[in-house]
Amino acid sequence: MAIFSLLTPLFIAILCVFIVVILRSRGNSSNKLQETKKKRKESKPWVDEDLQDGTEILLEDGEDKDDWQDPEEDILHIPFSSARYSVEEMVKRSRDFYELLNQRRSVRFLSNEPVPREVIDNIIRAAGTSPSGAHTEPWTFVVVQDPEVKHKIREIIEEEEEINYYKRMGDKWVSDLKKLRTNWVKEYLDTAPFLILIFKQVYGQLPNSKKRTHYYNEISVSIACGLLLAAIQNVGLVTVTTTPLNCGPRLRVLLERPVNEKLLMLLPVGYPSKHATVPDLKRKPLEDIMVIT
Amino acid sequence: MAIFSLLTPLFIAILCVFIVVILRSRGNSSNKLQETKKKRKESKPWVDEDLQDGTEILLEDGEDKDDWQDPEEDILHIPFSSARYSVEEMVKRSRDFYELLNQRRSVRFLSNEPVPREVIDNIIRAAGTSPSGAHTEPWTFVVVQDPEVKHKIREIIEEEEEINYYKRMGDKWVSDLKKLRTNWVKEYLDTAPFLILIFKQVYGQLPNSKKRTHYYNEISVSIACGLLLAAIQNVGLVTVTTTPLNCGPRLRVLLERPVNEKLLMLLPVGYPSKHATVPDLKRKPLEDIMVIT
Repeated sequence: MAIFSLLTPLFIAILCVFIVVILRSRGNSSNKLQETKKKRKESKPWVDEDLQDGTEILLEDGEDKDDWQDPEEDILHIPFSSARYSVEEMVKRSRDFYELLNQRRSVRFLSNEPVPREVIDNIIRAAGTSPSGAHTEPWTFVVVQDPEVKHKIREIIEEEEEINYYKRMGDKWVSDLKKLRTNWVKEYLDTAPFLILIFKQVYGQLPNSKKRTHYYNEISVSIACGLLLAAIQNVGLVTVTTTPLNCGPRLRVLLERPVNEKLLMLLPVGYPSKHATVPDLKRKPLEDIMVIT
Repeated sequence: MAIFSLLTPLFIAILCVFIVVILRSRGNSSNKLQETKKKRKESKPWVDEDLQDGTEILLEDGEDKDDWQDPEEDILHIPFSSARYSVEEMVKRSRDFYELLNQRRSVRFLSNEPVPREVIDNIIRAAGTSPSGAHTEPWTFVVVQDPEVKHKIREIIEEEEEINYYKRMGDKWVSDLKKLRTNWVKEYLDTAPFLILIFKQVYGQLPNSKKRTHYYNEISVSIACGLLLAAIQNVGLVTVTTTPLNCGPRLRVLLERPVNEKLLMLLPVGYPSKHATVPDLKRKPLEDIMVIT
């Protein structure tokens, strides 16, 4: 009985420690994901919430390390040859291409004049020649020409953008954009004959319903967008590179895209309107962007 | 005395709970950053450790919300006009540009034949016309022609890549790349007349030593790389898009770039070698990458 009364406080103490450990570790694991999300949002407010979360969560939770792939597939290697120009031609071609691209401006005033569909097909074909991590080609170009769908896209984007401007972006960012006269009214989403929405596939879907890793998918799709911008400029059309903040999930649902696709960019494509203006910005000279070693 | 002996177990229990809570919460806060880092590395093994950590940590710890900027700077807006082609011309230009880009292949066998410096200048000028978040132009193109520097770059990359192949990448990734006959021996780093290392500036440095936010810097610099690839193809030169995994910090130090710059890509540029081969890969047809609505 003496031993029992001596052990009682010890027993209660151990029990309490045990209960606290259990409770706290439960609390931790349920809060961990939310904390990570919150921290990420706070640290990079200008990155689309959808883009921030998507890839990493998918890979944390659902990545199947046991991907299907062709066993020992050894693709045939073939001789490579390419066009060869004289030095004079090369220099001229390099200068002409720079001058062509240097005419490009982000234009926010687009006319509703029709654009041939064949041109749209070809500029997307050009974008699709982009290199990609392990040749996964992780892009989907959704081309919207239906006026009703365009208008629905505009409604979603303007709704979210107004919230962005007032709540999410912060004074500094709004002020940085003020000089570009950017705001949340996006008339071009109605007027442009085509909207191209570029989705990155954060993973691939294999026939056996397993996932295929898309290495460097965001960088790959951004490079493809670079080719697309060059192709648009090359045919005399205009666009503006937009990344509609936090509209991705609603636009994905509207356009019936699968869950492995995340909106990276939206480009309205068309002719400039008659009274189009652009901010009188200059580009950095070569010596400010190039270093020779 | 009866009350005292009744309270003893209760007192000890409370004390124990208190100690456990204190200990666990300390442990948590000190481990949190490491855990986050660790998780990020595990979840995205193919993203350069330097690229993964850098931006976010900088913004978590060092972001100055009080950036300098021109107060109320309202840039003049000017009329915009652009080249205008007939429908036939547009269609032809779009097709020709697609065909030009579709000849592009990632070539790993480069000759040491010299390339005119003027061409390199012009292709980098072309890349510098890329759009960027809030017109921050967050790129630095380091052009290496010195054979000794090229060789040092090769040594760093081959050292790290061998570790990548054996330790960091995992069997699946190595196997995904096997069919492309990619490995850690990079002869082109010595033979190519020029190496272009593309750095993204994760923030800007203002004259008053404060930091300027570079919105969407990775996407912006990747788009610029897309323009660069198009410019290289346009002059009949070849390259291969490489993202040397975990070499960023050592290459940054070697090339004496500031801490706000992170290596995004490395492109060897030159003529293909006589016996260059490429894997016989096909690109997805238009209907697999484009959706019309």
